[in-house]
Amino acid sequence: MRPCVTPPRLVRGAEFGGPKPLFCVPLVATDSNQLLQQAGVVHRLAPDVVEWRADAYKELSGERLVAAAGDLRSVLADEPIVFTLRHSKEGGAQQIGQDLRANCIGAVLRSGLVDLVDVELSNGRPFLEPIIKTAHDHGAAIILSFHDFETTPSNEMLLGTISAMIDQSADIAKIACMPREPGDVLRLLQVTLAARRIFPSVPLCTMSMGSLGSLSRVAGFLYGSDMAFAVGQEVSAPGQIPLSEARALAEGLLRYA
Amino acid sequence: MRPCVTPPRLVRGAEFGGPKPLFCVPLVATDSNQLLQQAGVVHRLAPDVVEWRADAYKELSGERLVAAAGDLRSVLADEPIVFTLRHSKEGGAQQIGQDLRANCIGAVLRSGLVDLVDVELSNGRPFLEPIIKTAHDHGAAIILSFHDFETTPSNEMLLGTISAMIDQSADIAKIACMPREPGDVLRLLQVTLAARRIFPSVPLCTMSMGSLGSLSRVAGFLYGSDMAFAVGQEVSAPGQIPLSEARALAEGLLRYA
Repeated sequence: MRPCVTPPRLVRGAEFGGPKPLFCVPLVATDSNQLLQQAGVVHRLAPDVVEWRADAYKELSGERLVAAAGDLRSVLADEPIVFTLRHSKEGGAQQIGQDLRANCIGAVLRSGLVDLVDVELSNGRPFLEPIIKTAHDHGAAIILSFHDFETTPSNEMLLGTISAMIDQSADIAKIACMPREPGDVLRLLQVTLAARRIFPSVPLCTMSMGSLGSLSRVAGFLYGSDMAFAVGQEVSAPGQIPLSEARALAEGLLRYA
Repeated sequence: MRPCVTPPRLVRGAEFGGPKPLFCVPLVATDSNQLLQQAGVVHRLAPDVVEWRADAYKELSGERLVAAAGDLRSVLADEPIVFTLRHSKEGGAQQIGQDLRANCIGAVLRSGLVDLVDVELSNGRPFLEPIIKTAHDHGAAIILSFHDFETTPSNEMLLGTISAMIDQSADIAKIACMPREPGDVLRLLQVTLAARRIFPSVPLCTMSMGSLGSLSRVAGFLYGSDMAFAVGQEVSAPGQIPLSEARALAEGLLRYA
């Protein structure tokens, strides 16, 4: 039995922290045609959540992104959509000035076309606070995230980071780290279990990246992670498993747990 | 990629510590008819190894058990057979005096009809040494084992136990513990990983029991366990998963690792 959130958080029909493991499939497109083509493919795979990694998009302006979000919503009518515009320093596809980024995220949130927004905690309060306010004013949930593409920090540092996310009004706390050795994957799962106990009402999304970390993408649900990323058409981070296989593995593990 | 043993240990064609995960299916029968019926079913499931849990057998004498082992071998011509005669104190099906037990194990080993024998480390050197010698004289491998059906001892205690098994000439070291909370399962996997590093040439068989521990039965291979137990017809310990599903889960996890 997996450790659920009390109460689970409902976002456009998806229960974050409920008994069912949620799988999010990313879209990584450079233009609207590619975005719609990928969305069509992914829609047929029936993911629980779709992330639009808009940082791969060539024409970054509030107006263009809102138009693309509208197109996306026409294909994905029922799926919760996470909007993510990550800077290259945060593993994003291109360099983006902070002002442009804040404008783009604000415009998309005000459109009401997306359900969640993922922003890296390290952007700091002055950047995060207006985004969080806009999100909540327009009915979107905030994922505050921490990515480390090099290593897996200490358990204390990771728990402190999750605590800081929740302090800053994260609706969902996300941690993605690169393991350097197999023990780092087990440690990430232990941190997840500890965080679930300390923060029983906040959904978590944790993962250990790369092939070494792939176990965490299907077994994290047993230890308090509520969403994992899986491959639809395009991989957005190393170690992602195709959706149907990831779901079968996670459900298989949960069946006997 | 799973951490293999160098070199892997070959037992009747099964590679202990090689890249392929080994699944052992137990037979728990009270008489020869039941044993042969179960063996027929299990043979068709194509397990990698079969354990004959002879402690469930009603007529415990060297002669009867050797006869039954011969019958068993006629059905399981190619499968490595583990012979196990566990005392009730060790989770076995009945009380057995130590002298009778030593006689039965010795007789079955001298028959050359089995490939491995599993004996609990806690029996002590005076009991173990003659069994180990007889096994090695007759080409059988020794599994020294530690079971805790109540709790999961400290990492230091578990590593010390594995070290003691290897000191006493274990060919394979086996640890099975009951988790009290999900973190105990992760800890058992960490102990397995540490043991694989400290003893790179000794195959291991480790598991966390019960439904809480089921992950370890399919993910232990990623951390240095070389064999897991799965259900054929009869469950021999809590938390075992049916063979075909356990294999699919383990192979799925290894495919992306």
